[in-house]
Amino acid sequence: MPITGRTRLFGILADPIAQVRAPEVFNALFAERGIDAVFVPFHLGSRDLAAAWPAFKAMQNLGGLIATVPHKAACATLCDALEPAGRMIGAVNTIRREPDGRMTATMFDGDGFVAGLRAEGHEPRGKRVLLLGAGGAGSAVAFALAAAGVARLALANRTRGKAERLAAEIRNWFPDAPVVVGDADPTNADIVVNTTSLGMNEGDPLPIAVETIPPAALVAEIIMKPATTPLLAAAEACGNSIHHGRHMLDQQIPLMADFLKI
Amino acid sequence: MPITGRTRLFGILADPIAQVRAPEVFNALFAERGIDAVFVPFHLGSRDLAAAWPAFKAMQNLGGLIATVPHKAACATLCDALEPAGRMIGAVNTIRREPDGRMTATMFDGDGFVAGLRAEGHEPRGKRVLLLGAGGAGSAVAFALAAAGVARLALANRTRGKAERLAAEIRNWFPDAPVVVGDADPTNADIVVNTTSLGMNEGDPLPIAVETIPPAALVAEIIMKPATTPLLAAAEACGNSIHHGRHMLDQQIPLMADFLKI
Repeated sequence: MPITGRTRLFGILADPIAQVRAPEVFNALFAERGIDAVFVPFHLGSRDLAAAWPAFKAMQNLGGLIATVPHKAACATLCDALEPAGRMIGAVNTIRREPDGRMTATMFDGDGFVAGLRAEGHEPRGKRVLLLGAGGAGSAVAFALAAAGVARLALANRTRGKAERLAAEIRNWFPDAPVVVGDADPTNADIVVNTTSLGMNEGDPLPIAVETIPPAALVAEIIMKPATTPLLAAAEACGNSIHHGRHMLDQQIPLMADFLKI
Repeated sequence: MPITGRTRLFGILADPIAQVRAPEVFNALFAERGIDAVFVPFHLGSRDLAAAWPAFKAMQNLGGLIATVPHKAACATLCDALEPAGRMIGAVNTIRREPDGRMTATMFDGDGFVAGLRAEGHEPRGKRVLLLGAGGAGSAVAFALAAAGVARLALANRTRGKAERLAAEIRNWFPDAPVVVGDADPTNADIVVNTTSLGMNEGDPLPIAVETIPPAALVAEIIMKPATTPLLAAAEACGNSIHHGRHMLDQQIPLMADFLKI
């Protein structure tokens, strides 16, 4: 369907931008459903986001935005209303522009990750999880794993205080959550999840010493490009089952599309 | 070519937006040249443009913008640098985003209109022209006709003072330009050009009493939708030659593409 003056606009806010997959995924969805809309990349740096925000509120043909690194937390502060998942995590990745310009947002990363595990046959309930990283994506995954009823949720982050703050926030919403904070020690873990950015860029060190991971543990990523990170490649070479980053986004697409009224 | 995170972005600023043709024209050009870029509509109202502007400066994958009604004059005040045609007219329709976020702009409406006349075999040099309207587009067309060496340039505008100000500005740049201000009287005119918005909306009155136009005169439009305005239809019925609005944009496309480094 050609883009005309009547075509509705959707976009993704990101920096860097080259690796984002949302334009391809959503434009395929528009084509499939015969919707006159287009999804484009908006490359904005962190320090420009707040100044750029009024444009998106004012853009009358904008249906909504997806936010990814490094904008998820900043978008939560800029939006006019947050759904519970966005409030809990203090970060959002899906923003609907209401016809009056109000921006309503939520976060589907956590639900998408858990749905991705399940879609691949890995039920997290009752499992012992080591989660690497306590940033925006890590928080979303941690909250969703706590909600899914894991048996242990160990948080390991380079800056330990950040992991401790996340643990406290999780207990605030889920008082009985079995959250602990510690080193990147996978002993007894059933699932190891990397939510750090290590693996996105060539030459990154591995986020964990792969040989310490129990052979029966599942090693999961949320990085989408490269599809198979050095961590996943190393884990696979050690005989571990692996879980690709793309499942988190794949499982979010229908949730995002509903929220954006696509 | 599918839109990805690497796709460059171009857009048109307009209100209303549904009638714009630039997305179709430029996306066809991108496809023809195998360029990984997409051209989309940005629907922004007048009072939101200044607040939205920082977003376009900051958007690192934005190559440039086309501005149309009602943003041409406002964009001239917001841009960082204007080429002579933009400075002369005090309005711009083509804005290039430099890699550092500076916005450089110019106005191709006038050159496009004159090139359109020539492409259709209507050389304006030495002709007596009645120009209806003295707004942004009217100014651009008037300057370009003065530069093209018309024998008379009669400006008629509902608010006469506005036409007088335009005449003074034209004389400021072209001291010998044969500019006069008067009523919408086509007596002795070789070319009548409508640059008012009358004809864009159903039920608009005609911008001139068509039966007063000499039968040998060319009647020209700059309105693109509808393709044949009531003025053109009436003029054609009276036996006049007519010139459609689309020629002005068609002839600007290569000029705009060069300026935008497409």
